[in-house]
Amino acid sequence: MAEKTYNDEFWMDRCLELAKEAANIKEVPVGAIVVHKNQIVGQSFNRKEIDQNPIAHAELLAIQEASRNLARWRLSGCTLYVTLEPCIMCAGAITQARVDRVVYAAKDPKAGAIESLFQVFDSKGLNHTPMLDSGIQQEKASILLKDFFKGRREENAEKKTSVKRDLEVSL
Amino acid sequence: MAEKTYNDEFWMDRCLELAKEAANIKEVPVGAIVVHKNQIVGQSFNRKEIDQNPIAHAELLAIQEASRNLARWRLSGCTLYVTLEPCIMCAGAITQARVDRVVYAAKDPKAGAIESLFQVFDSKGLNHTPMLDSGIQQEKASILLKDFFKGRREENAEKKTSVKRDLEVSL
Repeated sequence: MAEKTYNDEFWMDRCLELAKEAANIKEVPVGAIVVHKNQIVGQSFNRKEIDQNPIAHAELLAIQEASRNLARWRLSGCTLYVTLEPCIMCAGAITQARVDRVVYAAKDPKAGAIESLFQVFDSKGLNHTPMLDSGIQQEKASILLKDFFKGRREENAEKKTSVKRDLEVSL
Repeated sequence: MAEKTYNDEFWMDRCLELAKEAANIKEVPVGAIVVHKNQIVGQSFNRKEIDQNPIAHAELLAIQEASRNLARWRLSGCTLYVTLEPCIMCAGAITQARVDRVVYAAKDPKAGAIESLFQVFDSKGLNHTPMLDSGIQQEKASILLKDFFKGRREENAEKKTSVKRDLEVSL
């Protein structure tokens, strides 16, 4: 019996679940997985705040886990799925790791390094350029991010009101 | 008594020592340190092969150690010294970590992302751009790299000759 092959939407849904886990602990909700031969070999969500690690983006953590699991730094044969367009650091890491293919959901107009702020993979000078697909489950990923930042703004506004209230009481 | 302040050459010499450690274990010789208040808070050499980790560049490892030591992802007040112009991944990591200042020794014409293949810090869209100095101890760093690659080429040539010799004997 032939092995079931999952499609991009299936894997991106897994990334979205990871992104929700990030949101639950107040991290910017981004999730990433590395798939090799129809199996997840690396996965993570953004852990920058909880780990106080500036490079703990979902993609970098997923790439490192994949390398540990496959016992090699070269991630040929792998596809990286991520809910948000990678930043310049992560785009660089993807080329360093020789990932075959990248699939991302939502664009990041401010910091995205694939199509937005930079177009890293368009450079002729890189010694590896992955295949690329974008827009898969874009709406779900965008809603998750928008809801997260809306919630954070509301929380900050609430904090300010509460500080003002405390100040008024203490005066 | 005023604390002794070390200059860029002093710190770059420390990076060069780290780079030599890398060469000793057959890693591409690049060394990096993060300095905060006149003290090293993070240091590493390139460990990509030994760790089989595609992102284990000297800069990324030094940045992560600095974050652990300072218990914060934001490396404001820090200078990163590195013997080779950072690649695109590392240039991105430097901006992610909000490093105040970057000092590097040799240019990397093929993959450098500060002045060579990319000019990452020239982008107006980044939310942080570090100060930059380059060329400090450039010659020492270049010689170290050139000697390393020359040695590797010679080793490969020797291996080929030896395989040829074995083949001739076995025929």
